Amino acid sequence: MGRTSDARERIVRAAARLFLTRSYHTVGVDELCDAAGVRKGSFYHYFPSKADVAKAVIDLHAEAFWMRLEDDHQATPSERLHAAADAIGAIQMDFESHFGRAVGCPFGNLAAELATTDDDLRRHVAAVLAELERRLAVVCREACEQRLLRPGVDPDRLARALVAQYQGMILLAKVSAASASDLPPALHQLITAHLNDPVHA
Amino acid sequence: MGRTSDARERIVRAAARLFLTRSYHTVGVDELCDAAGVRKGSFYHYFPSKADVAKAVIDLHAEAFWMRLEDDHQATPSERLHAAADAIGAIQMDFESHFGRAVGCPFGNLAAELATTDDDLRRHVAAVLAELERRLAVVCREACEQRLLRPGVDPDRLARALVAQYQGMILLAKVSAASASDLPPALHQLITAHLNDPVHA
Repeated sequence: MGRTSDARERIVRAAARLFLTRSYHTVGVDELCDAAGVRKGSFYHYFPSKADVAKAVIDLHAEAFWMRLEDDHQATPSERLHAAADAIGAIQMDFESHFGRAVGCPFGNLAAELATTDDDLRRHVAAVLAELERRLAVVCREACEQRLLRPGVDPDRLARALVAQYQGMILLAKVSAASASDLPPALHQLITAHLNDPVHA
Repeated sequence: MGRTSDARERIVRAAARLFLTRSYHTVGVDELCDAAGVRKGSFYHYFPSKADVAKAVIDLHAEAFWMRLEDDHQATPSERLHAAADAIGAIQMDFESHFGRAVGCPFGNLAAELATTDDDLRRHVAAVLAELERRLAVVCREACEQRLLRPGVDPDRLARALVAQYQGMILLAKVSAASASDLPPALHQLITAHLNDPVHA
């Protein structure tokens, strides 16, 4: 069995992979230990329960997510929204090339599977999606202040619509076993439809 | 134990309720039998496996869904799209008042949980969402022919965006333990943003 020093990280990475390609409930602690190459005692040393691993998995994905979504404050609000759409699309493309198929969003998958049965995990994943919505809302409000939004468009509603579109498009790709390559164009279209300036290069 | 004659229906209804308020994998056959008041032999008489119950649950929800989405071909394409948005919202409101919380979409929940692990079930639920998209695309194309769509808006993409927005908004309500009452306004906003006529009563 591997070195103890990186056992925690190996458990989290194995869980991230298995939860994403299967689901939370179909993966047991024994299988997580096998996949991570750690003993059960070591597992429980780091994680009191499988739910605690799931929280660490959410944190791992969130950290990577925020790095990819690094915002360029010098760009225009329109450019920043379109850049976020591309970044979100690129993350999904990476998953697809890694796993050979659309596996869904790690946040959305856990949300759908666990939100009604584990309130603690629900809050943990909800916080990530709420943070994404908050960041997008900042940009949408700047777009509103610069009169870039179509009349009647509420910037906070637009931010939420973008998060919903991102989640929905990924779910549709997953259920139809298709690529999520439609995701960036769908987000660009949604942004364009709400902006006064209909041109997006 | 109840009459055999309605045992199949009681099993499907119990499964629909339990899968929706919890998840597919957290509900076992024993619990389904208890909730439906049927013996295990009776269960396996009707359903070779839990996956077969899930298919019947999808069919049950789909049947109710198509009844609610009855299309009025006399109405304008714009009115028909907005009516579909209201119907989809009303279904979620019914779930919420029945279960006391947002439980997600029965199709989206099973899609997220099972799409990568059960290809047969994946196809079964994908067919329902594809049929919804197909029906909306018919109306979007009529809107396009009547020059009601904004320049550059592809009717098929708009139909898919509506299905994605519906799935995403329901997932966000579920994960934030909030009401899905934002769903109809979000769909109306999406429709309005893509139509030339910005007025929706």
